[in-house]
Amino acid sequence: MTKQLRWGLVGASRIAAEWIIPAIRATPGNEVVAVQGSNAARVSEYARTNDIPLTCESLEELLSAGVDAVYISNTNEKHARAAIAALNAGKHVLGEKPMAMTEQDAREMVSLAKHKNLVLAINHHLRGMNSHRKLRELVESGVLGDLVAVRAMFGVLLPQHNRGWRTDSASAGAGVFFDLTVHDADTLHFILGEKFVRVAAFTSNNGISAKGIEDGVATIAQTASGLTVQITESFAIEHARTTLELHGTKASVFADDVLLQRPGGRLELSVQGNRQEIPIEHENAYPRVIAAFADAVRGVGRPLVSGEDGLASLRFALAARTASTTGRVIEI
Amino acid sequence: MTKQLRWGLVGASRIAAEWIIPAIRATPGNEVVAVQGSNAARVSEYARTNDIPLTCESLEELLSAGVDAVYISNTNEKHARAAIAALNAGKHVLGEKPMAMTEQDAREMVSLAKHKNLVLAINHHLRGMNSHRKLRELVESGVLGDLVAVRAMFGVLLPQHNRGWRTDSASAGAGVFFDLTVHDADTLHFILGEKFVRVAAFTSNNGISAKGIEDGVATIAQTASGLTVQITESFAIEHARTTLELHGTKASVFADDVLLQRPGGRLELSVQGNRQEIPIEHENAYPRVIAAFADAVRGVGRPLVSGEDGLASLRFALAARTASTTGRVIEI
Repeated sequence: MTKQLRWGLVGASRIAAEWIIPAIRATPGNEVVAVQGSNAARVSEYARTNDIPLTCESLEELLSAGVDAVYISNTNEKHARAAIAALNAGKHVLGEKPMAMTEQDAREMVSLAKHKNLVLAINHHLRGMNSHRKLRELVESGVLGDLVAVRAMFGVLLPQHNRGWRTDSASAGAGVFFDLTVHDADTLHFILGEKFVRVAAFTSNNGISAKGIEDGVATIAQTASGLTVQITESFAIEHARTTLELHGTKASVFADDVLLQRPGGRLELSVQGNRQEIPIEHENAYPRVIAAFADAVRGVGRPLVSGEDGLASLRFALAARTASTTGRVIEI
Repeated sequence: MTKQLRWGLVGASRIAAEWIIPAIRATPGNEVVAVQGSNAARVSEYARTNDIPLTCESLEELLSAGVDAVYISNTNEKHARAAIAALNAGKHVLGEKPMAMTEQDAREMVSLAKHKNLVLAINHHLRGMNSHRKLRELVESGVLGDLVAVRAMFGVLLPQHNRGWRTDSASAGAGVFFDLTVHDADTLHFILGEKFVRVAAFTSNNGISAKGIEDGVATIAQTASGLTVQITESFAIEHARTTLELHGTKASVFADDVLLQRPGGRLELSVQGNRQEIPIEHENAYPRVIAAFADAVRGVGRPLVSGEDGLASLRFALAARTASTTGRVIEI
């Protein structure tokens, strides 16, 4: 029998409770053994609610608790430090996005994982969605022909429970670039099968984020092959759903409501304006994230999103942010 | 009885035949008396087909033929010269977009019209559409709340009969900036009730335009109030319809298929994701262009799109083009 993969959670987060803990438990050979957080009372309550045997106040404590892998979902500015400590302690790492807040930290994580022969993966879960796999397949197979334009809109009204550091604390990595842009970059890199090489971006503040922190971003990006892509992102769009559109010479595809955590949404293929639904068997993406990670730990295959993939998305988000503050197009 | 407004056509164009001549004839007090074009055989045939009494080979001939107003729809690089000659000859001018190819020429047109007390209008006809008037009304009335993001897509597969100088001749003002960007700028200036102050743009060539001339443009723009707007424009999008989306704090509105010459399309208001059609009584916009112009000539009201409006749209398109070639954000 294969050895169990024993997970420790860094951060007593909502996303862990809602998605990652159930996914670990749904994946044979994986178990959650500990959770770490700085607020002892809160962590105890979290461990009780989520049926986790061990609680740790410090990261060091967690890393000495016999875990094989950690899932990192504390605030953004702590991701890199936690990942580097875990890798140095010989643990495999599944990190929340953004993997780090600087390119330097992200590069250190990638090189450390490589050097130590550990799995480093980033939780851009959308690569695990059947909707996104279908979009990638439509591009790869040539069904769409040559792509001529792509548009994405990740507009949501950020729920109250997600406001706080995510909207107000610059030092904790608040704002749209670290929350949505980094995610959309990974999604589009995956679907398009190529990376962005240039970006320009304008930001806005519509009263959801604190003054001086963006809650809206409008981006144009270009891939190595010359394809132009537009991305609208916002914490302040309440009355529309997320969308992705790929326009090709043979067909366009419209994906509606496919950018959130829950599986769902709808794909329509349009030829000459006639739209036809593409049936999708929706599945929870998170168990796939865990299964691929656990396989990679055992030497089989690679995680859905590697450290290098996460680095590419982070570099895009950082370039978009620099573009917005400098008023220049940034080459990536 | 009011004096007839006698129109001369500069350019034996398809748009004149399809839209402007019928609009002039549908508007009491207006008549088409002459058409000018450099190819005598073609102009004669055009005059016969369209039942126009007089043909002229030169612009000077047309301006001496007793016309009160000219409609200019020759190739883009000739618009300004024709308009300036007509204004100098004391004629009112309705010009096709772009009103000129340089800001300097456009400013000269505006100042000449003012100095001579003549009407100068630009044929951005969408201001005459009930769909666009409704969109402006939704913004003005506060139904949408505060706008947080706007997206537009003017993607078409340029019909074969519109290829030629429009796709291939840089000196004649080919490409998307002079054809679509200038139009979208006017449409958005009108609907939003404010002007763009910054722009960045990337271009692509997908084989519709000649090498080195853009057939796709991805633009981000920001208005004086800070609103961010994205515009996708393309001569190479065959399988999707044109769209406009305005996202506000109280509602979003989706306008589908509303950017073409013919009246039509569909508006849907979305509140919390529930979409409801807004009924529109579609009407041909061109008779409104002519009626408002003729009224302005008689001293009543102003044209739908003034020379100053046209100048603002041209300045946006030129700034977007400069942004794309320099890799910089351009302040307008």
